[in-house]
Amino acid sequence: MDGQTLSLVLFSGTDDRLNAAAVLTAGAAAMGHRVNIFLQYWALDAFRAGRITKDHGVAPEGDAAIVQRHGGPHWSEILRQAKDLGEVGIHACSLSMEMLGLKEEDLDPLVDGQEGVASFFVDVDGPVTFI
Amino acid sequence: MDGQTLSLVLFSGTDDRLNAAAVLTAGAAAMGHRVNIFLQYWALDAFRAGRITKDHGVAPEGDAAIVQRHGGPHWSEILRQAKDLGEVGIHACSLSMEMLGLKEEDLDPLVDGQEGVASFFVDVDGPVTFI
Amino acid sequence: MDGQTLSLVLFSGTDDRLNAAAVLTAGAAAMGHRVNIFLQYWALDAFRAGRITKDHGVAPEGDAAIVQRHGGPHWSEILRQAKDLGEVGIHACSLSMEMLGLKEEDLDPLVDGQEGVASFFVDVDGPVTFI
Repeated sequence: MDGQTLSLVLFSGTDDRLNAAAVLTAGAAAMGHRVNIFLQYWALDAFRAGRITKDHGVAPEGDAAIVQRHGGPHWSEILRQAKDLGEVGIHACSLSMEMLGLKEEDLDPLVDGQEGVASFFVDVDGPVTFI
Repeated sequence: MDGQTLSLVLFSGTDDRLNAAAVLTAGAAAMGHRVNIFLQYWALDAFRAGRITKDHGVAPEGDAAIVQRHGGPHWSEILRQAKDLGEVGIHACSLSMEMLGLKEEDLDPLVDGQEGVASFFVDVDGPVTFI
Repeated sequence: MDGQTLSLVLFSGTDDRLNAAAVLTAGAAAMGHRVNIFLQYWALDAFRAGRITKDHGVAPEGDAAIVQRHGGPHWSEILRQAKDLGEVGIHACSLSMEMLGLKEEDLDPLVDGQEGVASFFVDVDGPVTFI
């Protein structure tokens, strides 16, 4: 994917999937790829200011105790580092903002703004991964 | 993704993920991309004739009340509009048809037919997104 | 996706999603594509030696009885056949290995080894699908 962008649609709001997304973002950024993150539904809800590091649970088949015991940086911190390291943009889906009754000032500063789904596709150039 | 197709494998049968899939389909179609949808498992089950608009629940970490309160067109209506707008094909996975004991006449008219997974890959030309 | 690789990040540990992943792998391999599987979290846990064919449940909206009644080869057998048929590599994510406290000898022989997320992206050349 030389010179391509990794487009990540984050939908799930559990800490295990958000952590997997953050690790993939950091890996792609470390290899020199742009990463374009689009936040929908419960993933967007997890990026509310002041709530980002609260416990968001894990997938039904998962074991929260394993994830917590492991420690390591929080997924929001991994995303912050990935933004310092490479070209990583994080945008909220306008429709999901409306559904959740959110304004931009309700979101963590990690989020660069909001956009519609058509705008999201303008920047798609490479894989589109839904998490 | 100029001139490329967005290939969407729909697996999940909850209304929130199906709505996210419909919104991505509409956005991609609006930007002039072909969209090729392949229905497996619980997503295929959600496309049964006469049951498509029934309540299919949301992800375990989600809040069904938020989704219902929001209103807006049903995901099946968004897909219908996307098919009018652009080149959107919806096919059922033959293996999942067999597993669920379904015939083509059991499915909503939104579904264009069934195909095997190898045929699905013949048309893949661009991102493959699993929802 | 002529000459491209299908990169599959397997995260979920339920039998229905693992089976969908195996079917997509077999279909892509049958069409001559390389498939590069990266195991994280609960999917990695499902590849432990001696536990791969145990019951891993299904998605919350799914019906385990339908999946079991259907029969057909187990997803691990479909992956085995896909590896015989084409160029299919399966690697464990090093971070997930560490989180789950696993060593390579704890994993089923289907797994070819472990690698970090940056190495995974070196081989990405085509779609990146998260399951």
